Formats: sequence, C-alpha cells, structure tokens
Amino acid sequence: MASVGILERLDAGEVVIGDGGFVFALEKRGYVKAGPWTPEAAAEHPEAVRQLHREFLRAGDDKLENRGNKVTFTGAQINEAACDLAREVANEGDAMVAGGVCQTPSYLSCKSETEVKGILKKQLDVFIKKNVDFLIAEYFEHVEEAVWAVEVLKETGKPVAASMCIGPDGDMHGVSPGECAVRLVKAGAQIVGVNCHFDPMTCVKTVKMMKEGVEKAGLKAHYMVQPLAYHTPDCNCQGFIDLPEFPFGLEPRILSRWDMHKYAREAFNAGIRFIGGCCGFEPYHIRAVAEELGPERGFLPAASEKHGNWGAGLEMHTKPWVRARARRDYWENLKPASGRPQCPSMSAPDGWGVTKGHTDLMQQKEATSQDQLKQLFDRSKSH
Amino acid sequence: MASVGILERLDAGEVVIGDGGFVFALEKRGYVKAGPWTPEAAAEHPEAVRQLHREFLRAGDDKLENRGNKVTFTGAQINEAACDLAREVANEGDAMVAGGVCQTPSYLSCKSETEVKGILKKQLDVFIKKNVDFLIAEYFEHVEEAVWAVEVLKETGKPVAASMCIGPDGDMHGVSPGECAVRLVKAGAQIVGVNCHFDPMTCVKTVKMMKEGVEKAGLKAHYMVQPLAYHTPDCNCQGFIDLPEFPFGLEPRILSRWDMHKYAREAFNAGIRFIGGCCGFEPYHIRAVAEELGPERGFLPAASEKHGNWGAGLEMHTKPWVRARARRDYWENLKPASGRPQCPSMSAPDGWGVTKGHTDLMQQKEATSQDQLKQLFDRSKSH
Amino acid sequence: MASVGILERLDAGEVVIGDGGFVFALEKRGYVKAGPWTPEAAAEHPEAVRQLHREFLRAGDDKLENRGNKVTFTGAQINEAACDLAREVANEGDAMVAGGVCQTPSYLSCKSETEVKGILKKQLDVFIKKNVDFLIAEYFEHVEEAVWAVEVLKETGKPVAASMCIGPDGDMHGVSPGECAVRLVKAGAQIVGVNCHFDPMTCVKTVKMMKEGVEKAGLKAHYMVQPLAYHTPDCNCQGFIDLPEFPFGLEPRILSRWDMHKYAREAFNAGIRFIGGCCGFEPYHIRAVAEELGPERGFLPAASEKHGNWGAGLEMHTKPWVRARARRDYWENLKPASGRPQCPSMSAPDGWGVTKGHTDLMQQKEATSQDQLKQLFDRSKSH
Amino acid sequence: MASVGILERLDAGEVVIGDGGFVFALEKRGYVKAGPWTPEAAAEHPEAVRQLHREFLRAGDDKLENRGNKVTFTGAQINEAACDLAREVANEGDAMVAGGVCQTPSYLSCKSETEVKGILKKQLDVFIKKNVDFLIAEYFEHVEEAVWAVEVLKETGKPVAASMCIGPDGDMHGVSPGECAVRLVKAGAQIVGVNCHFDPMTCVKTVKMMKEGVEKAGLKAHYMVQPLAYHTPDCNCQGFIDLPEFPFGLEPRILSRWDMHKYAREAFNAGIRFIGGCCGFEPYHIRAVAEELGPERGFLPAASEKHGNWGAGLEMHTKPWVRARARRDYWENLKPASGRPQCPSMSAPDGWGVTKGHTDLMQQKEATSQDQLKQLFDRSKSH
Repeated sequence: MASVGILERLDAGEVVIGDGGFVFALEKRGYVKAGPWTPEAAAEHPEAVRQLHREFLRAGDDKLENRGNKVTFTGAQINEAACDLAREVANEGDAMVAGGVCQTPSYLSCKSETEVKGILKKQLDVFIKKNVDFLIAEYFEHVEEAVWAVEVLKETGKPVAASMCIGPDGDMHGVSPGECAVRLVKAGAQIVGVNCHFDPMTCVKTVKMMKEGVEKAGLKAHYMVQPLAYHTPDCNCQGFIDLPEFPFGLEPRILSRWDMHKYAREAFNAGIRFIGGCCGFEPYHIRAVAEELGPERGFLPAASEKHGNWGAGLEMHTKPWVRARARRDYWENLKPASGRPQCPSMSAPDGWGVTKGHTDLMQQKEATSQDQLKQLFDRSKSH
Repeated sequence: MASVGILERLDAGEVVIGDGGFVFALEKRGYVKAGPWTPEAAAEHPEAVRQLHREFLRAGDDKLENRGNKVTFTGAQINEAACDLAREVANEGDAMVAGGVCQTPSYLSCKSETEVKGILKKQLDVFIKKNVDFLIAEYFEHVEEAVWAVEVLKETGKPVAASMCIGPDGDMHGVSPGECAVRLVKAGAQIVGVNCHFDPMTCVKTVKMMKEGVEKAGLKAHYMVQPLAYHTPDCNCQGFIDLPEFPFGLEPRILSRWDMHKYAREAFNAGIRFIGGCCGFEPYHIRAVAEELGPERGFLPAASEKHGNWGAGLEMHTKPWVRARARRDYWENLKPASGRPQCPSMSAPDGWGVTKGHTDLMQQKEATSQDQLKQLFDRSKSH
Repeated sequence: MASVGILERLDAGEVVIGDGGFVFALEKRGYVKAGPWTPEAAAEHPEAVRQLHREFLRAGDDKLENRGNKVTFTGAQINEAACDLAREVANEGDAMVAGGVCQTPSYLSCKSETEVKGILKKQLDVFIKKNVDFLIAEYFEHVEEAVWAVEVLKETGKPVAASMCIGPDGDMHGVSPGECAVRLVKAGAQIVGVNCHFDPMTCVKTVKMMKEGVEKAGLKAHYMVQPLAYHTPDCNCQGFIDLPEFPFGLEPRILSRWDMHKYAREAFNAGIRFIGGCCGFEPYHIRAVAEELGPERGFLPAASEKHGNWGAGLEMHTKPWVRARARRDYWENLKPASGRPQCPSMSAPDGWGVTKGHTDLMQQKEATSQDQLKQLFDRSKSH
Repeated sequence: MASVGILERLDAGEVVIGDGGFVFALEKRGYVKAGPWTPEAAAEHPEAVRQLHREFLRAGDDKLENRGNKVTFTGAQINEAACDLAREVANEGDAMVAGGVCQTPSYLSCKSETEVKGILKKQLDVFIKKNVDFLIAEYFEHVEEAVWAVEVLKETGKPVAASMCIGPDGDMHGVSPGECAVRLVKAGAQIVGVNCHFDPMTCVKTVKMMKEGVEKAGLKAHYMVQPLAYHTPDCNCQGFIDLPEFPFGLEPRILSRWDMHKYAREAFNAGIRFIGGCCGFEPYHIRAVAEELGPERGFLPAASEKHGNWGAGLEMHTKPWVRARARRDYWENLKPASGRPQCPSMSAPDGWGVTKGHTDLMQQKEATSQDQLKQLFDRSKSH
C-alpha cells in the first residue's frame, strides 16, 4: 500500500494529482475498441497498460486507478490483472492504487436498489482482495444510483470518493450539483466531484457548485475533478457523447498543455485538491497539471526533465522567431488555429435532449429495449 | 533481417506502410524534450521506445526505423541501442529495419562536401554493424546536401531512400520538387519522396511533382511520403516550424483517422507505394492508413481487432443518435468543430520568409552565429 | 395621422412591423458620424433621410420613427425637421409616426428625477406640436430612468411604448427583465420590450422574460422587439458596445435575410406583435421580417415585387447549381462562411465589466468625469 | 460633360475613384430583383437610383456609370433614363459619366462576331446620344468577346476601358490575364482591368498580371480594378457565383472599411489608378478608398465630414475601452469575429468546374438549352 493514504494527504492540504482516462488513450494505441470500450487490455496486453500507467506516474500522477470502462462491469479476472498491474507500477513510485466502480446498465432497466447494490458489491471483492488504497464510485449520471454505490463502498471501511459525470445542469433528473454533492457526502463519501463528459472549465464550475452546496448544508468534504481533455463549450446536459464528433472526430478539440495550466490553476483556486483527468488526457497533459502546481507541491514530476518550463526548450532553436516563443506569455495568449478552414468552431449536439430537456432524456434512459429506443427516436424526428 | 527486402516489395507492387515520427509521440509520453528533440530515450527508457515501436507495428507498420532527431547527429551508443530495439520489435512481426540519417548543421556553416560526407559516414557505421535492411536519407531542406547523403549511403550497397522536407515550392534555394527528385535518382536513390514539414495533402502533391519530374527525365523510381499528422494549409515554404503554434499549440490541427483514410487513398492514387507518417502520428493514424489500403494489401493490421470498420463499433451504443454514426458517410462528411470559438482556422506564419522569399531565408540559413541571426532578426522587425 | 392607431392594431391582434435603426444605416451612406451619432442629417440632407424612410416603408415598415441618436438629446429644430420628414413619407403609405426619447446623460451625473424629467419633457414639445401617433421611450439601461420617461410621456395622453436596451441579465443594477417590465407597465406603458445592444435571438429571449414577469404579476401589455442586425452571442451584459468590433468591424456579424426569417418567426411565436429592428438593419432585413409574417398579415410589402420567395429569383440562372439554390431548405440550412480564415467566430468583450459584473459597471457608469473614468480604467488594468 | 476627361486625368497621374456596383446595393434597398438583376429601377424609382449615385459621389466617386446588369442587355428607354440620372448627379460634382456594355448571352449560343457586335452596337446609340464621357466594356468572361466589344466601342471615338470578370487563372478558355490584357490593348482599349467575381486582393493580383503582360509586350495602358466587397479566398476560377453563399448568404464576407484601406493601398502600389468597386460596395466602402488615397489626391471626399480618421470619432465615447479604439493600429490589426460559431470560414465552391477545370466549364457555357445543362449537371453528379 501507499505509505500515506489519500485522506491523510488531502487533510494535510496536499494536492493529489490523478491520472488520465485509459480507454481513450489505449484506443489510440490500438488496445481498446471504441463503442464497447471494454478493458480486456489488462489481460491481453499487460505491457501496453503497464507502459501507460508508467507514463502517467512519471507525469506526476499520484493515483493509479483500475478503471476500465464506462458502461459494463468487468469480469473479476480482468479486474484482478488490472489491480496487479496498477500496484506493480504504483510501487515504482509512491503512488496509491484506487479501485473504481461505475454506473450499471441495470439501474435504468430494473431500478431495484438490491439488484444494483448486488452488482456493485461483486466488483468490490477483487478490490478488497487486492487491498486497494481507496475506492471511487465514478461516472454516475443519477445521484440515486451514486448514493447506492457510496453506501456499498462504505462498507469496506476504505476511503470513498464519489464522482458524477454531470455538468452545471445537474443529474439526469435535474438534481443540482450542489444537492447531488450533499446527498453523496451524507451517504458517506469523503471526496466528491465530477469526471468525464465535460471540458475542464465546465467541470471546475460544476465542482464549485457542489462545494457551495456542501458548505451551505454545513457539511465538509474534499473535492475532486477529472474532466475531458477536449474543449466542449457546445455540449448539452449529457456532455460530449451527444456532440457529432464523438468519439472519432474529437481531435480539433484536444486541449494543449497550456490549456491544462489554466485548468489546474482554476481547479486549485476553486479549492479542489484532487485534480486529474479523464478521456483524451495524454501523459503530457497530466505533466502540465503537475508543472502548474509545482510551486504549491514543492516539486516537479519526473517527466519534467524532458520539458522546459513554458517552452524554454525552444531557446536554442536556430530560427530567431521560434526562439521568441520560449516564453510564458507567448503560449498563454496564443489562440491556436485549427488548419481546418471548412470546419466550424462549435457544433449543435445531436439527440432530442438538446431542446426538450430532462423529461425526454429520462424517457430515453428508461427505455430498456432497442425497440423502445427506436420508437422514441422516430418520434423525435417527426417533431 | 526481414524475409523480403524493401525493393522486392515495391517492385512487386506491394504497399509498404511506414511508422509515424518518434520524437513528437515520445515527447507527449514524457521521454523526449521539445527543442533539442534528442533521441536518448532509446538508451534511457528502452521500454517506452519498444512499446511505441510495437504499437506502430501492430497498427500496420512494415518498417521500423531508427530515427531520432531532426537537427543533431546522434551518438553511436544511442544509435546502437536504437537499432537493437527496432530489430527486436521488428522480429516480433516480419518488419524491416531502416537506418536513417538527416541533414547536418555543418552543411550551412561549412558547406564543405568532404566534411559533411564525413559526418554522414560516421553515422553509417552502426547501421552497417547492425545490418539494417535499408537506409533513408531524410529531412533534407537542400537538395545539394541530400545528394551528398545519397552518395554516401550508396557506398554501403544497401537500398537507399531519399526524402526531403520540402513542399511544392521546392528546396531552400527554390529547386523544384521535380528537379530535386531527378538529382536524387541520378545520385542513386531507388526511392524518393518527402517527409515532415507539411500536411498529408501538401506532401502528396509534392511527391506527385517529383514523380512527374522523374518520368519526364526518362528515369525510374519508387515514391515515398511521410507527412505530418497536422493540417497546415497556412504554411509558408518552410513548413510548420514557422506556424505560430509550433510545437506546443498544434493540437487543433491533429488529423482524425478519417482524414488519414483520405490521405492514404490520395497517396495510393498518386502512385506512391511507401506510405507512412512523421510528427504528430499516433498508432491509430497508421492503422487508419493500413485499413484504407486493406483491400489493396489483402489484410488488416493486428490493431484492427480493436477497431470497427468506419465506426462500426458504435452500432451497439445505447443512444440511437450515436448508433446512427456507425457508418462511413457520416465520418467521411463530418466537418469537426474545434470547440474553440475564439480561435481562427488559419494562422499567419512567423518569420520574414513569409513575404520576402527564398533570398532572405538563405541569408538566415547561412548566418552561422547567434549574433548574425540576432542582427537579421532585428533588421527584419524594422521592415 | 395614421388612419388606425398603434393600440387599435395591436389590440386587434395585428402584427406591426417597425423600421430599422437610422444612425448606422445613414453612417454607411455618409450622413451620420459614428461616435457622436448625432442626427443632424434630417436638417442637412433631408433627401437622404427621406429615401431611407421610404425604403423601410416599402420593405414593410408600419411605423416611421423620428429617432436619431443614442446619447444626446436633439435640438428642437432638427427634431422638427425629422418629424416632418417622417410624416411626409408616412403619408405615402398608411404608416404611423412615432416620437422617441432615450436615456439622458444627466441621469448618471445628477440622478435628480426633476432634472431628468425636465430634459425629457422638453423633447416632447415637438412631438406634440407635430402630433405624432405614439411615443416611445427607448434605449434605457436603467429601469428607474425608463420609468421616469414613461411617466413624462404618459402626460401627453398618447400611447406609450417603453423599450430598454438590456439583455437577459437585466438592467445595469441587475433588475431582471421581468421586473423591469412590471415597473414600466405599472408606470403606464402599454407596450414594453427591448431594442438595440443584442442580437435578435437574445432580444426575443429577453422580451419573453418580460412577458413572463408581466403575466406573473397579473398585468397586461403588448410587446415589442427591435434588435441589432448583428450576431452577438459573445456579448456581456452591456451588449455589442463592449465587443472589440464595435462599431467599425461588425460586418462579419451582419444577419442574412434568412436569419431574419428565423427571428421574425421566433418573435411571433413568443407573442411579440411589434417587431422591428435597430442598428445594422437595412431595408431588405425588414422586408424579410414582413415576408416571414406575410401569411399572418395577409399581404406582402411593396418591395417584395423585387424579391423571389426564398430565393425563387434564382430559378432562371444559367448554372444548374445556382438554380438548385432556389429553394427554402437550401437557405434555411446554409451555414455561411466568412471568407476570413484568420478571424475567430467569437470575441472576448472589452472592459472590466466582463468579469467583474454589475458593481464595477455601476462604478463606471456613475463616474461623471473623464478623470474618474481614467482612474477606474487604470485601476482595472492593474488587476 | 466633365471638365476634364478620363484619359487626361490618368495621363496626369491622378487617381480616379469609381463607384460601387448598383444591382447589389439596390437589391438590398428593395429596387432590384436578385436573379434577373435587371435595371428597371432607373425608370421605376429614379429617386432611389439618384440617391445611390449621390451617396457614391459624396463618398469620393469620380465616375458615375450607367451600368445595370450582368446578363441581359437593357432596353434603350431604361438606358436613356439611367444616363440622364447619372448626368444629373454628376453635374452636382465634377464627375464623369460612363456608359457600360457587358457580355451578351448571344456570344455563347451563336458565337457569331457579326451578331454579337450588332447587339453591342445597338446599346451604344443611347450613350452617343447622351454624350457620355467614356465607355467601358466590362464583365466579360471570354477575351474573344471582350475584344469584339472594344472594337465596337472604339468606333465611337470615345476613350475605351475594358474590364474582364476573371481571376489569376484567366478567362474561361484559360487565356492568362497578361495575354487577355495584351489583346485588349491591341484592340484599342486605353484602360484595362478586372471587375466583379473576386475579392479586392485577388483582383489586384490579376490586374498586376495584366500589367506585367502589357509591359512585357512593350505596350502601354492604364489600369482599373473594380472588385467585390466580399472576401472570397475560397473561389474557384468562376468566382463568387459558385460559392454556396451566392447571392443571399454573403453577409459574413462583407469587407470592413479597414479592409478597403488595405485594398486601396495595394491597388495604388500596384500602379492601378482607376480604383472602384462592384457588387457589395456601399458608399462607406468607396469613402474608405478615397480616404486611404487622400494624401495622394490632396483632398478628402465630402462624406468624410461625417467620418473620423481611423475611428477618431470614438474619442469622446463614455467608455474608456471604446475610446481606446480611436486609433489606426487598433482597426488595422483587428481580426473581426463573425458571431457565428457554427459556421466555417471557408466554403467549397459548387459546380463541377471546381475539380474538372476549363474544359467542362466551356461545355457548360456552350450548352445552349436548359436540357443540355440538365444533362451535364446530372452527369456531373454521377462522377
């Protein structure tokens, strides 16, 4: 286990840096299939997963998570392999290993607390056996299910973090971020926040709303944020999945390292101390977070040996106008061009959720069969 | 050595797929420093380099190159480590190993054929000792120096490819792509083409001009192309280095996998049979090239087991409008948004080269000391 | 006078179409100076003003307004000339003549109800003498001053419309649109709405909020909207004046006629019946409003004799692909390009109001001397 | 007649400023129908045409042209009315009146020199009767027809200008701008240049190529340019008509007054002395041309009394950040935003001309019946 626990670090006011998401990064490297997004890579190609863990660790990450997917629960065997990999690499540094559970497809189809909790519990067995350092319930769109997850995780006695994939509009029933956070803290989560679905600035804004809710309720918590590495100002309440570019045309939206500096500072200023990433993050994005918060943390990550501060590596370039870029204000103020003159800067999200709001989203979420979905979709087109 | 050589493959009409550039990919993973771009990772972090080789190989790459950098020549020890790594991974498939040399800083300062050739020769020792399958002289801006390199490489008796980092405007003295190609073929290169500096469509256009030149001169050659994975329609004749986004703000320009399909088809239609990538390429980009040319090659790369054809992996998504994206014409016609409404689509390149052309570029290139450059730069600002 | 009054028309459920703003249109024609925006053209170049009145009338406008400027009150002589011109052209159709007053610089400096009302009253003399059909208090940023203006106008016994230049964030003290509307109706305005400062969709949204407020308060009113003809999604609460493009670089934001169709429909659907324009409107914009609402009104404007329905005039073009544009869905769905690849789609507004909100705006508004403003500005730059 | 003739002015080195196009400006004012673009307004609404003439004259225009349309020849009666109007307003200043003829639909259908010349001659009768100051053969896509027109106009003994609507790729048979100009000068044109179809910078570039051709041939001429007021970097060789935005969605492309300053300077530097405008020009655009060339001409136009130099009118604005815009470098460097985040900056032109070049364009041009065109169009879609 890590020499110091997550809560001790946060209580001491430390900044804990998370990793980036694995499925998107491994998809680009050829080991995960977009669509199902299943995490069998840990078993099939452990060297690839190990290498990605190492790169995030080297970039400043304090937490190696076994988190594979977004929609399906993972077979115990794969989970076990994943835990071993994470622990192996974590031991190369002094990183913590987290075990993650996420929303279940069963929630929308059965809505039975017993059944959903049963599924979540089964996933915990491996984490307990492998003695992870703490647990995260993450990527929940419904606060009710997230609360159930926290209740299950709490039984282990481990520290519990709860992270929803919501934006400022709240969960899929319209429960506000502040109210979501209050319910999660009351259920026992020591750390609350958001991950995935929205860009860094939107996520920080959402966690701020959570923090305000928690403080207004006279409660206490730590805060976490693990956003996308994509600019998504044009999202509707369901996040980047509804953008027409999801998941194979997101490239022009990728954040630069300098965007990450701004994100890290904004998150820190908002009082968030567990700062990481999700889909789209590459190791250099995490390094940028760690470099921005270097003064607060008192050290730079290992990977900074290969990175000049604010572009300093360009100082020796042969062209004077490239050398002139070796300074902070150049990169801070650059508005990078896309090289795509026939493309717009914003998209209109797909889906009827855009204009018709939470009610319809719920209808769709609750449609359990493909037929029902088809029916709803056809109906939506006739509006 | 690979069971079949590069020239045999090309003579047989096969498509040979190259890898992507290493320095940019390793920079994002934390192992190469932007600015110096030196390739010590092969010695310092062999597991990271090996993993990247594997990913490219798995994505369809037929050629593993020991190519580290753009501006400095590499110490023999590092080169040896790099060759061993490449061969080790190449043997996991049936890939070829190439040894690469690139332009020398000495060319501009001394202009002595003897001295430049001496430097190039020294680099060859490792490649001969390690018995690489073929040699590439790449990233040359001046055809004179490229011809010298070809002459040196020819002495080894190995197949020689020659690749310049030029666009349709030709080399830094204004020698046209067609004329450059003719001189390289006459010097003994069996394969000619371009790499780096420009986006795929610009590079394909340039190689077409080379091919026209070679054919017009009654000569014969094979053709290669290894472009950037960045859209750069706004480049001047010196390529992406003069774009204000180089090298830390290029994200919005990154090609999608669908852009790569178009590139691969365009290159194939132009008669180019050695098709690879350079800076900005990730393994999934190479996989897209291999998938587009799957029908011609008769097989798909290993990594395609984790990739649905034209987004087919989305077929089982829970949202009907996301399922509706599981088809070719959706992705072929998508104009992806940047999510950056305050950014333009095109930049104005830096440097006085933009408006003042080749003469000034030469002045600058030929300025050997920092002082001279400073002087030129200051003068340029007063224009 | 017009044969039927404004209230009779609105009570009967008619759609009344307003004109566009005069100062911007006359500035482009060479008769008004941007900056001071003073309306002496009515006296200096009556033929130019008369012609613009005629064009708006011909485009469908039912109301010819004597409205000159935004910041200064106008000399009686000029106002008289302007009234005569408006009446002269109005009589060519069956249009109404309105007399308009707007916010006074005195409000911010003296804040004395007596003094402000005195200034407003003086302007009324001409309107009474010239017997305008109704009165408009428009372009007010503070509801307090707008209420004073309504109180003054009410004394004439003429119908009174009140229009503020606010967006969804409300007036400069943060009074919401709904509350502003309630106060104006209580003060006696029979018609309330907004003009200038924001684009059509933002203005319609604001008037909707006004309508909700009025209805919630159990009151009754008619609604008006006279927005910019510029797309301004990037405005802060003070509107387009803070955009860096104001007033000489707004061209890329100009609405097309098809954007106007959408605006007119949206305004009509929102229950607004007095629909016109402000800065940036040209006669063809008003015609587009009149054409969209042709079915409801039962007739088309005179200028439609020179306009094919939804591009129908292209049906006889020699090129088949241009003929293919002679249809509604082509123009409704077109996303027009700017031809400006180095320009962004959105700007960051100037001024410290952007980030620091109403309090600072008030400070600035209440700074009466140039020195105070300078001081505030300098202070703002040091933040 | 004007007190000094066009050739005397140009020979003396004066800058002659032209007007803007009438059909687009009158279409927006409600007097011309887009599609047919016929100029009956001169007879139907003389006050509207007179007012537009006056505004251009006041903006600095030295030449009032009777030019109505692009595709049909105009009835003598309308032409006579138009000449009278132009002369009437010209006499208010000391402007010249020009008579213009343009390409005939007959050229493509009959190709008979006799027939085409007959049509052109008929149009001249009015110009001779009304004693215009000089003649312009303009808006010709084929140099052969333009030469015929010059030969016809020369017979009158009046000064003859010849202006083609071509870009750097030359006429519809691919005759280069330089060669076109040589043929026109040899046919007797004293002034040659281009108008319409392309944006200012493209037009200036084309006229430069004309000038180089003329000078290389040892000939002499004066040069004229009358471009669009739209940014069209994305045009193919047939100009803005093939852009998807033509003619009803061009708003985001409209040049600002500052773009006009750059155009005027570029044209002047290229040695062009007859500088005007075409479609899209409003009076303030011509004023900007006249203001930029004020130092060379020694005076400002009348309309400058309502225009501060480089935004100087903003100096007294109440907001300090708006006052800060009252300076040249602010407006010169502004990259204006479109406020249209879902729109691209460049379009792909329609038509098969784009990719298939001159041959197909000719086929289409020469297809005389709708059926033939339909056939070609259908064929093009199957490619």
